[in-house]
Amino acid sequence: MAHITVIGGGIIGRSWAVVFARAGVAVRILSRRKGAKASILDDIAGAAQRAQAIKPEVSVESLLSRISVHEDLGEAVSQSGFVMEAVEEDLAIKTALFRDLDHYAPPDAVIASSTSSFGISRFAGEILGRHRCIVAHPAAPPHLIPVVEIVPAPFTSLETVEIVYELMQAIGQSPVMVKREQPGFVMNRLQGALLTEMFRVIEDGLMSPEDIDRLISDGFGLRWAFLGPLEGIDLNAPGGIADYLKRYGFMFNDLANERGATAPVVTQKLVGLLHDSMRSALPVSDLPRKLAWRDERMAQLRALRVKLGPFEADPDGH
Amino acid sequence: MAHITVIGGGIIGRSWAVVFARAGVAVRILSRRKGAKASILDDIAGAAQRAQAIKPEVSVESLLSRISVHEDLGEAVSQSGFVMEAVEEDLAIKTALFRDLDHYAPPDAVIASSTSSFGISRFAGEILGRHRCIVAHPAAPPHLIPVVEIVPAPFTSLETVEIVYELMQAIGQSPVMVKREQPGFVMNRLQGALLTEMFRVIEDGLMSPEDIDRLISDGFGLRWAFLGPLEGIDLNAPGGIADYLKRYGFMFNDLANERGATAPVVTQKLVGLLHDSMRSALPVSDLPRKLAWRDERMAQLRALRVKLGPFEADPDGH
Repeated sequence: MAHITVIGGGIIGRSWAVVFARAGVAVRILSRRKGAKASILDDIAGAAQRAQAIKPEVSVESLLSRISVHEDLGEAVSQSGFVMEAVEEDLAIKTALFRDLDHYAPPDAVIASSTSSFGISRFAGEILGRHRCIVAHPAAPPHLIPVVEIVPAPFTSLETVEIVYELMQAIGQSPVMVKREQPGFVMNRLQGALLTEMFRVIEDGLMSPEDIDRLISDGFGLRWAFLGPLEGIDLNAPGGIADYLKRYGFMFNDLANERGATAPVVTQKLVGLLHDSMRSALPVSDLPRKLAWRDERMAQLRALRVKLGPFEADPDGH
Repeated sequence: MAHITVIGGGIIGRSWAVVFARAGVAVRILSRRKGAKASILDDIAGAAQRAQAIKPEVSVESLLSRISVHEDLGEAVSQSGFVMEAVEEDLAIKTALFRDLDHYAPPDAVIASSTSSFGISRFAGEILGRHRCIVAHPAAPPHLIPVVEIVPAPFTSLETVEIVYELMQAIGQSPVMVKREQPGFVMNRLQGALLTEMFRVIEDGLMSPEDIDRLISDGFGLRWAFLGPLEGIDLNAPGGIADYLKRYGFMFNDLANERGATAPVVTQKLVGLLHDSMRSALPVSDLPRKLAWRDERMAQLRALRVKLGPFEADPDGH
């Protein structure tokens, strides 16, 4: 690929530039802010420096040597192999921008949006090249957190989906497929569900904000740094996830009821889907070995946290 | 303190024994299973070995030298300074056990339960020494995950609360206060809220179980290994958490609505509580420094994950 174009020199755009350049790809950043070039490259150097543990063999200098900043859209996308949009969350701006990108980008270049709010059909449905448009919503910031939600519209071509998915894997990100457009995609729904429950507990006076944060950072966060919540409960009953849900499924139904749900959340269909998924990855007989694997990693993470130290607020309050 | 008694030689009981013995305290485990002594001590040795990174200066041998296993309750609690119950989740068993513990334990010893399901008032409300009874619900396993929910009943004495809280801090655990008894306390409510949303997304066919797990393990899990979700969003808007909720609060209300809520979750009162809590810990001017602190840690965690390697399923499927 000749080069990748990143549209926007904000936090997400700069972070994408680190991701692509770190993988060895040339990056052109479009920033229409006059004179922003030096500050964008400075910020990227700082971010790359702090992230160097992820790929120590790539020096900050070599990474920076692959990045250029442009003020002209035509120049930025000329001969581009892939365009990643990361401008502000404004439908009118994105709509006009995608029309321009479709006009100026090479016809075989995929055009992806980093939007966290809108399906691609909200702002690219009317352009000729809409089949090559897709959402690739990163966690923030992508140069540190690898997961990326891939969200096609019904008009997006399968080829576009494949190109984005494979590109993300090739550059070391962790793509996941969202099968239909919906508000919040899936990533923000998960964080939203957890935070909403935290908000209710705090509002009810059941626990202080400091304490409830520690339930995660000194609790589940240590597990989830290495495995997902489903893998987590799969390890918490001798027979795996189906056994876990047989024992504790009532808990989820009770809590959901209390929060206004009208139907049970743990259904036969769900248990079947989860069982098939987990057991095709790992037989029950392997669970004890995976538990030991998890435990060793949590111990190492606790040692890492001690070694790196807690955040120290400025004693002078400045 | 002379010694601590752990009631039960199961997964949680053995893990508590590691926590206490690692902190230098003598531990007596009560296990009524005949001949279980050798296997309990073997399991503890293995767990302590895998967890040694947490406190490398304590050898497995010295840790084991502080642990004994007993079949007689009177002997196990005699002269005990603190009793930690960790038997199965069965109300009848716990009710009878707490009556016995109150009879045999020294009168000034606090008696804590590791229960994850029941408030202490469900099984200790009728005994004479109920003022010294309290729930100390650990994450599993406590020798790796430090957070412990402290849940008093209305009849629990303030002195008991203080003793448990300070003991947990002294031995390196991370106690949090649950202000009222309720099903699921708070820890399991948080995990429950997240898993419930995951279940719904899977049941709706929006994302595969494998992918949705990666939204956490390659996503938010990297953040939550170092800071709580509230601290996390505090870093995601220039003005901190109040600014974040002003910008994105609608998202939580919309998602909660969609899931059956009838009232908004982001209230003025909530925003005030969160703002006061976050800003008393850290001025807004310190947020960029904390962001850099977070980013360096996430990079180190990613390097640690690469170094320790992924879990490899047994290629023969055994």
